[in-house]
Amino acid sequence: MNIKKMVVFVLFLFVGINCFADTNVVVDNMLNRKSVRKYSNKPVEQDKIDLIVKSAMSAPSAKNLQPWEFLVVTDKNLLKQIAKYIPNASYSKKSQFAIIVCGDKNVSEKFWIQDCSAVTENILLVVESLDLGAVWCAVYPYEDKVEKIQKLFKLPDNIVPLNVIPVGYPKKKETPKQKYNPKKVHTNSWE
Amino acid sequence: MNIKKMVVFVLFLFVGINCFADTNVVVDNMLNRKSVRKYSNKPVEQDKIDLIVKSAMSAPSAKNLQPWEFLVVTDKNLLKQIAKYIPNASYSKKSQFAIIVCGDKNVSEKFWIQDCSAVTENILLVVESLDLGAVWCAVYPYEDKVEKIQKLFKLPDNIVPLNVIPVGYPKKKETPKQKYNPKKVHTNSWE
Repeated sequence: MNIKKMVVFVLFLFVGINCFADTNVVVDNMLNRKSVRKYSNKPVEQDKIDLIVKSAMSAPSAKNLQPWEFLVVTDKNLLKQIAKYIPNASYSKKSQFAIIVCGDKNVSEKFWIQDCSAVTENILLVVESLDLGAVWCAVYPYEDKVEKIQKLFKLPDNIVPLNVIPVGYPKKKETPKQKYNPKKVHTNSWE
Repeated sequence: MNIKKMVVFVLFLFVGINCFADTNVVVDNMLNRKSVRKYSNKPVEQDKIDLIVKSAMSAPSAKNLQPWEFLVVTDKNLLKQIAKYIPNASYSKKSQFAIIVCGDKNVSEKFWIQDCSAVTENILLVVESLDLGAVWCAVYPYEDKVEKIQKLFKLPDNIVPLNVIPVGYPKKKETPKQKYNPKKVHTNSWE
């Protein structure tokens, strides 16, 4: 077999594996998502930050009210203050940036939690797809934590921080939890 | 140029476009997700239903409590009854199946809404990736709707239906809403 024929053969193989294999990139990315709490010192590119926030906003919302606001925190001092005030978000201290997903109660009092949670899941999935890592750190429904973030960023009373999401390149390779449990699926009846 | 050379050229082009283009399938799928309310008569394959539910369960949850349960409704009579009792989920009547995402209040009283909303977003994204269509129809926090679903499926009191998600192959091609709004992004300060 000469070199030209080998190149053609390898190309066929490559195309076959990549383009006709029965893979679903969306599902693979979802199953591969994990909570990442330790980050490398590598800065995150601004276009990745922009893409994360843009994708987040494509989430559905009740009556399409889109009751979300995003605080993108890149300032190192602010990241440290978040870590100090919200112990469960201490990972923000060594993150490259953090997103605080906020709901506007005046826009959708009944559904801001659901809608902002869908937005948060979008953020976590895009983060995974960009080889970044992040973790959802709850702020709401803890009143003291909500107040601390509201004060730190001088948020109006109607703007409620749902969570803090520290983001960065993972410090080490991490593996996702296996959570599939068929007992949680009930077909046509509870019992 | 002979036929062999042309084949090689086309292959190079194909590989180049598919494998080295700067596309993010996860983001594209997310931006392409839309609420689909009208479905064709084509049945949905059982392996797709299984994949949707399995992927849904990979969502994060507070303290990893996984406070979710899934009611998968394929029975046509039950789908009609859901449509009757929950007017905003009337699309279930002509859907191929519906998923009712439920939260277990006994497992995570503080976070079942957030966690089940992340699960719901997973469902909607995988549905889009499988060329299916679906729509998030709220049940909770409407007490009357919660009770109706609880009675219909004889759910224990601690199992709260968050929503009904009718699913099927879309009846017609639909386009996603454009929701990107840079005014919703606040960097390092609210103002």
